[in-house]
Amino acid sequence: MSTASIPGYTYGSAAVPRSPLTLEELEHLKQAVTFGEEDVAALRRSREALAGRVDEILDVWYGFVGSLPQLLRFFSHRETGEPIGDYLQRVRARFGRWILDTAAAEYDQAWLDYQHEIGRRHHTGKNATDGADSVPSIDLRYVIALIHPITATLRPFLEASGAAPEEVDRMHDAWRKAVILQVALWSEAYVR
Amino acid sequence: MSTASIPGYTYGSAAVPRSPLTLEELEHLKQAVTFGEEDVAALRRSREALAGRVDEILDVWYGFVGSLPQLLRFFSHRETGEPIGDYLQRVRARFGRWILDTAAAEYDQAWLDYQHEIGRRHHTGKNATDGADSVPSIDLRYVIALIHPITATLRPFLEASGAAPEEVDRMHDAWRKAVILQVALWSEAYVR
Repeated sequence: MSTASIPGYTYGSAAVPRSPLTLEELEHLKQAVTFGEEDVAALRRSREALAGRVDEILDVWYGFVGSLPQLLRFFSHRETGEPIGDYLQRVRARFGRWILDTAAAEYDQAWLDYQHEIGRRHHTGKNATDGADSVPSIDLRYVIALIHPITATLRPFLEASGAAPEEVDRMHDAWRKAVILQVALWSEAYVR
Repeated sequence: MSTASIPGYTYGSAAVPRSPLTLEELEHLKQAVTFGEEDVAALRRSREALAGRVDEILDVWYGFVGSLPQLLRFFSHRETGEPIGDYLQRVRARFGRWILDTAAAEYDQAWLDYQHEIGRRHHTGKNATDGADSVPSIDLRYVIALIHPITATLRPFLEASGAAPEEVDRMHDAWRKAVILQVALWSEAYVR
């Protein structure tokens, strides 16, 4: 899917506000996660293993979200509680692109800005991008909680790439750090 | 160290305010982390592997915090920037006990209440317990970032227990989930 056809995907565009954090603050945060050049390289190697299987990964993640009412409600109508199909589909397209963007591992200003935008869209900016009539925010505790299932469920896809076990471990660890780093950045939209 | 001799350690006492979350909400959050009875059992098995090495684990963690100025500042004087030895020592004693409490894996009301208290002490309640003249809050993004180094550095200690590799994996995964779950709970003190 070309990025132009992903609804609401604005990474790198002038529509994305500047992050309140500087690139130096990003560097400090990366150090705290022990995220280094080896992780950048491992993420980029993982892109090949994952790029052809994005839809299957999303099936697993959406299956998980759909299995837990406390998660599905974030994609459901705020009054009726009915899941909003159109909203789920629009977010799914961006979620798929997020897999590729995370594996691309570009930690520049455009990327930093978009992390804050993603955080904002989980909280005060939720629903607006998709015109959804859903609950006003995803509770931050659930955003943090999902670090585990999101990263744990990637492992079978990394293993299926045929990489040696140590290489799977390296790519998996890089993904764990990358997701923790991003959730840490997203949390800024909740506390500022 | 008996818990009575740990400065500011109030787990289970009447001094701990009630958590704003219910036990049912905790249960929902555990589901989102995919935290189950197998993880409880694995954490409890890890207690034996870790209990005799708490000081060595703390040496690793304090070495990491001391190596990064952006972390050490949270334990430093808010004006002079000098690390506060007494504050570091008092927190260290509670941190050691936290390892044992996490491995005890009791997810009852007293535990839930204390998680909120720990979150509060990272933010609006920082410094008061120890009479420290430090910065007023630990930025939430760093609390989230530390999920990685805290859990990654435990692995050598789990391996040194002599457990089989699959058992090390199980205990390590349970620790990852447990720390993510706790940080998710601590974040409530920042967003409420």
